[in-house]
Amino acid sequence: MTMINAHDPTRTDQLPPADRALVERRAALLGPAYRLFYDTPLHVVRGEGCWLYDAQGNRYLDAYNNVASVGHCHPRVTAAMAGQAAILNTHTRYLHELLLDYAQRLLDTLPDDLGRMVFTCTGSEANDLALRIAKSESGGTGVIVTANAYHGTTELLAGMSPSLGPAMRKGQDVWMVAAPDSYRGTSLADGVAAALVQMRARNVQPAALLADTIFASDGIFPTAPGLAEAVAMVRDAGGLYIADEVQPGFGRTGKMWGIDHLGLTPDIVTMGKPMGNGYPVAGLAGRRDILDRFGQNMRYFNTFGGSPVAAAVGLAVLDVIRDQNLCQNAAAVGEYLLEGLTSLQSRHSVIGDVRGQGLYLALEFVTDGATKAPDSATALGVVNGLRDRRVLISATGPGANVLKIRPPLVFSYAEADILLRCLDECL
Amino acid sequence: MTMINAHDPTRTDQLPPADRALVERRAALLGPAYRLFYDTPLHVVRGEGCWLYDAQGNRYLDAYNNVASVGHCHPRVTAAMAGQAAILNTHTRYLHELLLDYAQRLLDTLPDDLGRMVFTCTGSEANDLALRIAKSESGGTGVIVTANAYHGTTELLAGMSPSLGPAMRKGQDVWMVAAPDSYRGTSLADGVAAALVQMRARNVQPAALLADTIFASDGIFPTAPGLAEAVAMVRDAGGLYIADEVQPGFGRTGKMWGIDHLGLTPDIVTMGKPMGNGYPVAGLAGRRDILDRFGQNMRYFNTFGGSPVAAAVGLAVLDVIRDQNLCQNAAAVGEYLLEGLTSLQSRHSVIGDVRGQGLYLALEFVTDGATKAPDSATALGVVNGLRDRRVLISATGPGANVLKIRPPLVFSYAEADILLRCLDECL
Repeated sequence: MTMINAHDPTRTDQLPPADRALVERRAALLGPAYRLFYDTPLHVVRGEGCWLYDAQGNRYLDAYNNVASVGHCHPRVTAAMAGQAAILNTHTRYLHELLLDYAQRLLDTLPDDLGRMVFTCTGSEANDLALRIAKSESGGTGVIVTANAYHGTTELLAGMSPSLGPAMRKGQDVWMVAAPDSYRGTSLADGVAAALVQMRARNVQPAALLADTIFASDGIFPTAPGLAEAVAMVRDAGGLYIADEVQPGFGRTGKMWGIDHLGLTPDIVTMGKPMGNGYPVAGLAGRRDILDRFGQNMRYFNTFGGSPVAAAVGLAVLDVIRDQNLCQNAAAVGEYLLEGLTSLQSRHSVIGDVRGQGLYLALEFVTDGATKAPDSATALGVVNGLRDRRVLISATGPGANVLKIRPPLVFSYAEADILLRCLDECL
Repeated sequence: MTMINAHDPTRTDQLPPADRALVERRAALLGPAYRLFYDTPLHVVRGEGCWLYDAQGNRYLDAYNNVASVGHCHPRVTAAMAGQAAILNTHTRYLHELLLDYAQRLLDTLPDDLGRMVFTCTGSEANDLALRIAKSESGGTGVIVTANAYHGTTELLAGMSPSLGPAMRKGQDVWMVAAPDSYRGTSLADGVAAALVQMRARNVQPAALLADTIFASDGIFPTAPGLAEAVAMVRDAGGLYIADEVQPGFGRTGKMWGIDHLGLTPDIVTMGKPMGNGYPVAGLAGRRDILDRFGQNMRYFNTFGGSPVAAAVGLAVLDVIRDQNLCQNAAAVGEYLLEGLTSLQSRHSVIGDVRGQGLYLALEFVTDGATKAPDSATALGVVNGLRDRRVLISATGPGANVLKIRPPLVFSYAEADILLRCLDECL
C-alpha cells in the first residue's frame, strides 16, 4: 500500500479542465486524507474485463486491480447482484438459504479443520474480528506482524500496519518483525523467535501471528521463508496463526488460497477484497472449537455482512472462478508473465529480482545488484511511464521499489504481452 | 441490540422440517456467535415495502427494519445499483464524479461547520475512524459512552458497547455513564461531569463523548436530557463530540438527522445503516479543520467505501427520501402511532411510558408504575405474540423491557393501524 505515486495536489496542469475541477472539488469535499494515484490523476468512467476507460474514451490496461478480480463489471456477478437485490436484502437474524450455501461453498475450498464461517463487509472487519477471537482464545494480547505489513483501517489494525507510514501509531503489545525475504535471504522464524523472547521477558502472552500469506506490502514473497517454523513457535507459545488471505485469496496465486501452496492450516483465515468483485463482502473461516468457544460468550452481528445479496454475489464470483477456470488462467498467464519478466531482467540490470505466484508478481528495482539497495526512483518512473502508456500499476515494499503486478484473473496472454512491451519501453 | 428474543437452538419443534434443517445447517456452518430472532425463527424469502414474505407465502409486517429504510427492495435504489455496477465499480484513488456529487449532497443536509466527508462500508468502520480522529485531534484517550450503548463490532467499539452483555470487555479509558432518561429523570450531564472528574484524577485526557443522538440501545430517549450541557463540558475539557447517527439518521426521526431536533453541531457525525437501503454504505462528516489536520498526517483508504456503486445507491436513497417526502411521512405517521400508543397506555397499566420521535418509538413496560421496575417478561411476550400475528418487532433498553418500534420510513397509516391492533391484542 506504499503510495509512491500519491497525487500531489499542486500538479494538475496536465489535466483536462473538467478533471482539474474534479481534483479541486475533491480536495474541498473530502480533504487531504484522500489520496489519488499518479502525478496526473486518472478519471475513469467505465470498466470491462481488464480495461478501464477515461472520460475521453481512452482505454487503460488494468494490471493492478485485485478487487474486480474476475474482470470489471462481470455480467454474471452484476446480474446476481441485481437479481437478488430486487427480491430480498436483509440481515442474518432471519433464516436464509443463500447464506448457508455460500458458507458451505467457501468452507469446501479450505482445509477440513476450518469449519466455521463469519461474514463481514470488509477485510478490515475480518482481521479485526480475527484478532478479537485470538485474544479471547489465547487469553493473550501480543500480536506479531511483519515490518511493512498492511492489515486494515480500524484503530486496532492501523496500529499493526506499518506500511501506513511514519504517522502510524503502533498499538500496544504489537511486535513488528522482518518479513520473509527470499531475495535477501531473511527468514520469518528469526524475527518471530526474537519477538517471543521479548514477550516472555515483558510478561506479554502471545495472542497471534497475523501474516499475509503472500507478504504483499512487504514486497511480495510467496515462498515465505521460515513461515512454517514461525507458526510452530507461536503455537507452542499459546498464540494463534491468522492467515490474512484478503489479498492472495480467491485464485490470484493460481490456487484458491495462498495457504494451498504453503501446506499450512491456519487457525483462522481472513478473506475480502476480490470476494464480491467490488460488492463489499468479506469474512473469516476458523477452527470449529475456537469459533464455538468465542460464540458461547460473545455474539457477533454485522448489519450488512452475510446478507442475501452479499451471498448471491459471492456465489456468482465462485461460479465464475470455477466455470472460467480462473485459477488455471492465473497460473498459466502468471507463468508466462514471469518468464517475460525474467527475460527483461536479463536485459536491464536495474531489475534485481523477479518473483511471484500466479497473477501476483513482483519486479524489484535496485541501484546495485550486489548491495541490493532499493531503487524507488526507477519504480516511480516506471509507474508513471506505464500510466503514460495507458497501463495501470503500482509499487510496494518498504523501499517502494517493487512493481506490484496484480491484474484481474481474466488477464490474457495478449494483455500480458502489452504489459511486457510497455515495461520494456519504460526501462 | 438486546437479544431478548435470541433463538434457543433446542426449540425448533414448531418449525416446518425444511426450516428446521436450515437451523441445523446454520449451527454447523456459522456456529453459536450467530443468533436468530424469535423462539420460532423466521425464514424470509422476499421483501417489498414494509412487508417480508416467508417460504410459505405468508406476509409479515416489518415494524423493525431501519436498514431497508425506504422500503424493502425499492426499485429506484436497486435500479441505481444494477445500472452503475454494470458500468464501473472501483476505488477512490481514481477520480469519479458520483463520489463528489454524493459527498456534496450529504454535506448540504448538515450544519455548515461540517465540511468534509469520509466514506466507509459500515457504521462500525465510521465510528472506529471517528474515534481515531478524535484521539489524534485531542491528543487524549478518554472516551465517554452511555451505560447501555451500542456503537459497533470492531475491537475498539466492542469495548465501548455495554449492550453486548456481560462478556463485553471494557476498553481502556472508557467511561460508561447513565443515559439521559426522560422517564426516570436522569440527566446525561451528571454522569459526564463525574466521568470528567475521574479522568482528571487519573490523568486521562478526554478524547470524545460518543453518543447515539436517540440513545436507541439505552431505551430510546430523543429529548436527551442534559446532552447539550454534557457536550459543552467535554469540549471545555478538550474532547470532541461525536454524534452517532447510524440509527437515527436519514429521516427516521421526521427530520434528516437527530441533531436537527437538538440544535447541536457535533465535531463529527457518523452515519450508516439506512444510507444504502441494504447496500453497505457508511461514513462520517466532520469539521474541516479537524479532518484536514488528520489528513495531513494520515491517509485513509477504504477499498469499497465511496465506490461509484456505493455513491449511486446512496444518491438514489437521498432522491427517494426527497421525492417521496419520507421525512414528512415519518413525522406524520410517527405522530399518529404515538397517539395510538398513548391511547393503549391509558388502557394497559403495564405500559409505563410511551415516547419517541418520527418512526423511532418506544413502549416501556414496567411491573409497577410507581417504582418503574422493568418488565422484560411482558416485552418478550409481546415480541413473540406479535410474531405469531405476523408483525416483526424487537425490544431494547438495559432491562430489555422497551418495545423498539422502527418500521421502514414508507410505513402507512393503514400499516400503523395493523401494528396498534395487534399490540392491543397481545396486551
